[in-house]
Parts: sequence; C-alpha cells; structure tokens
Amino acid sequence: MSSDSLADADIPEGFRRLKWRSGYGATVGPLYERDTPDGGFVRAFKVGEHQTNMLKNCHGGMLMGFADMTFGHVISHGNRRNWITVRLLVDFIAGASLGEWVEGTGKVTGIDGSFYTVQGRIWVGERTVATGSGVFKVLEQR
Amino acid sequence: MSSDSLADADIPEGFRRLKWRSGYGATVGPLYERDTPDGGFVRAFKVGEHQTNMLKNCHGGMLMGFADMTFGHVISHGNRRNWITVRLLVDFIAGASLGEWVEGTGKVTGIDGSFYTVQGRIWVGERTVATGSGVFKVLEQR
Repeated sequence: MSSDSLADADIPEGFRRLKWRSGYGATVGPLYERDTPDGGFVRAFKVGEHQTNMLKNCHGGMLMGFADMTFGHVISHGNRRNWITVRLLVDFIAGASLGEWVEGTGKVTGIDGSFYTVQGRIWVGERTVATGSGVFKVLEQR
Repeated sequence: MSSDSLADADIPEGFRRLKWRSGYGATVGPLYERDTPDGGFVRAFKVGEHQTNMLKNCHGGMLMGFADMTFGHVISHGNRRNWITVRLLVDFIAGASLGEWVEGTGKVTGIDGSFYTVQGRIWVGERTVATGSGVFKVLEQR
C-alpha cells in the first residue's frame, strides 16, 4: 500500500512515525506524532488508499479509530499508562480526501478517580474534520 | 495475518464474507454478514491479531469502526444507497478477546429528510460488548 512506503520527506517537520509493529495500530497506520511546546501532542496520518471509503475519502470508521487513538492518548502521552475507552462520541464536520494530512489532539476536561473525560478535535489544515469527546479509564500499572 | 486465512469452516452458519477488495473495509476486515428473517442483518468478525490492542483484546478503534460499518449499514442493507456518518456514539460495556466472534446490528429509530437516526448493539454470544447510536446521511444516487 502506498502509505506504507510513505517517504519521510512527505511528513511535516517534527513528526515521528509511531513504531507499532502489530495489532490494530499497525493495521490502520502508519500514524505520526509530534510534541507541542505546551506539553501536549498532535497525532496525524496521511490518508492512504487503505483508509478510504468508496468515495475515496477517509472512511468514517478510520476517523473513529483515529479519534479513539488520539483523544485517549492524552492520558498516556509522556508516560506508560494504559487505558481503555469507555465512551466515545464523534461529530463529523467535513471530509478528508485521499492524500490529505489529517491531524488531531485531545485535552483532559475532567478526572474522576480512574476516569478521564476528554475533548478532541481532528482537522486538515484550517478545516475542522471532526470534533468529539470521550471517557477513558486508566488501567492499573501491570 | 491469521484471520486472512480464516477457514470458512470457522465461520458460523449463514454468514458470508464481505468481498471488500480495497479501502478501509478490506484493511480492517475480513467482515461477515448474514440476513435475518425479519429483513435485517447481522455483521460480524472474528477478532484477529491485526485488530487487537496491547492487552490482546479487540482495540476500541476497531470496535468504533465496526460500529460505524454496522450501524450505518441498516440504511444500505438490501439496496445500493451510499451514506456518510454524521455523528456516532459508542458506549463500551465489555471487552472482546482475541479469537472471539463479534456480532452487531443496527435499527433505524428515526428519519428526517436524508438523515437517519440509528441505534445499534455489538455483542459476543450473550455478552453485550457495546451499544450506541448514530446519525447517518444518505447520499444522492450517483
């Protein structure tokens, strides 16, 4: 698949490829990440053929999965905590086309015990692609 | 990947493999479908390594994508209509482990112009894995 051979030169500066070698993340990837000066992060991917629907736009399921991996990651960014998704809501605002560079991030809006409430956004350039919120549960360190 | 070579003998009776040769559906699949006597359908997949998280359970993103493809399909079942996802909410009730057979379906709860409101459920055997609802928009026939 073309995106598997995506040259690093195609990737905006500051992004590193997430080295997921197995599982769902490797299946739907590659995904990229960069740190932001405020201690946050941006995750991203370039829409490849293997992520599209019949209209050659990014599939809604792919964006849902990206939302899950991106919004929830605010809990595990910079540490080794594991988490699971309790609830995820995504509103789709605009599409993302084949070849476009999609970015997203999340911020914690509340913590109650091991439950984190997170708001997130997904965008392409100046265009908001999706917004949403989620509840994620941090797992005990193993 | 093991699930790509999943023998038909492993698939519960009545299910047919969805012949998605490209795009997101092929990437995260294989998915299966059977018709139900009431004119509805059940979609399903057997959790493979390529759909798991680090805990070797089905990844939340995979279940989100499956919810999207399953809840929304109630609009396109038995016809050739295309649709896009406007909003999707999924509540995760229980996990699905590697090798388990996951099923799901959706039902229309409201129609307003080209917008369909759908409720859906995902389960493994007697165990509810997730419930949710979505708003999907039917596209003009091309």
